[in-house]
Amino acid sequence: MPFWQVFTPEGAYTDDDKQALAQAITDACISFAEIPAFFVNVYFHEMAANNTYLGGQQRDDFIHIATDIVARQLPTPEIRAACMSVINDTIRPFVQDRGFHVEIHLDQTPVELWRVEGITAPLDYPELFDQWIKENRAVPWEVPVP
Amino acid sequence: MPFWQVFTPEGAYTDDDKQALAQAITDACISFAEIPAFFVNVYFHEMAANNTYLGGQQRDDFIHIATDIVARQLPTPEIRAACMSVINDTIRPFVQDRGFHVEIHLDQTPVELWRVEGITAPLDYPELFDQWIKENRAVPWEVPVP
Amino acid sequence: MPFWQVFTPEGAYTDDDKQALAQAITDACISFAEIPAFFVNVYFHEMAANNTYLGGQQRDDFIHIATDIVARQLPTPEIRAACMSVINDTIRPFVQDRGFHVEIHLDQTPVELWRVEGITAPLDYPELFDQWIKENRAVPWEVPVP
Repeated sequence: MPFWQVFTPEGAYTDDDKQALAQAITDACISFAEIPAFFVNVYFHEMAANNTYLGGQQRDDFIHIATDIVARQLPTPEIRAACMSVINDTIRPFVQDRGFHVEIHLDQTPVELWRVEGITAPLDYPELFDQWIKENRAVPWEVPVP
Repeated sequence: MPFWQVFTPEGAYTDDDKQALAQAITDACISFAEIPAFFVNVYFHEMAANNTYLGGQQRDDFIHIATDIVARQLPTPEIRAACMSVINDTIRPFVQDRGFHVEIHLDQTPVELWRVEGITAPLDYPELFDQWIKENRAVPWEVPVP
Repeated sequence: MPFWQVFTPEGAYTDDDKQALAQAITDACISFAEIPAFFVNVYFHEMAANNTYLGGQQRDDFIHIATDIVARQLPTPEIRAACMSVINDTIRPFVQDRGFHVEIHLDQTPVELWRVEGITAPLDYPELFDQWIKENRAVPWEVPVP
């Protein structure tokens, strides 16, 4: 997490485009949220025009991005606005600048109902969490029993 | 938003069916929630029977609809029940009346974490929002800084 | 509901594997949450490596499971931890034990915005709900008007 699903028209992006957008999203998440790279999961779904409707009309120029976030809870209006601003800047070269219409929405899901490699992330343990960031993997640790 | 994902068996709907269902959903949303047509985003996912399980069994007669809503927050039990009743009436001709089993669930996602064409929708500014409805597009405006 | 979406690499599972995992998930949900079998909906999405990115890199060894729950609200930290523990034990033979990396996250969605076969589940009416479990179907009942 974050868990990004990018719904695009068929053929909207080459493999290089997808790689570049996934990397841009990952870089933005690392920088803004201070999380390990391997947390950032991006899936692309290429949707046929006959499976894509906006306002009741088939569309081949529309991208919807649906993202679930969990590691950071964006506690204030200022932080939430800053987050959306970073996302807009990150995706713009791949979306509006290429003539696509776009909508994006994020959801916040419960941190207690999230596991990486079967374990809880040490969000409240800065030293351990730094290790996850540096080693870019889920380093096993003794999770406290609730 | 609303962001509809309709998971159907392969071949459940023709292109005309999809168009008609997307239009019916759009009309219902416009009427019930008083939102612009272009907010209503419907994706169809045709799922093979060997990717669709209900109660542990493969199924080719089951439709799940998963919808994220954001523009309207459905503040009371009466409004929530009315919303689900409108949805049931809207989808029934495409689902139960054709012999499909069906489940639907909606989620409410945070309005501050939603952007259309990169901007905030003027939900609290009726004059501007009316313009979005009439022009059926995201008319740029000066979004207040939080 | 629960509504499970299992995002896997292409060819990660045979049809028998999918059947077995869907059955294992269903059994775990029935046992842990005391719900009817037909509530448990599992979809598999086989994702090409060029549509799957983790930390900005294409991956063909990663599984993400995204689950929406509604029937049971997991009211305490202990119950939430127990739920995740049951899920880990259930999926491990299909995921870690086969060399896949894995992330899972659950979301809780509003019970009032959920319908099965067009009707409300009688969660607060044990006798009726037992009938749903025993008959493994949405038995019609007189839903109270809110």
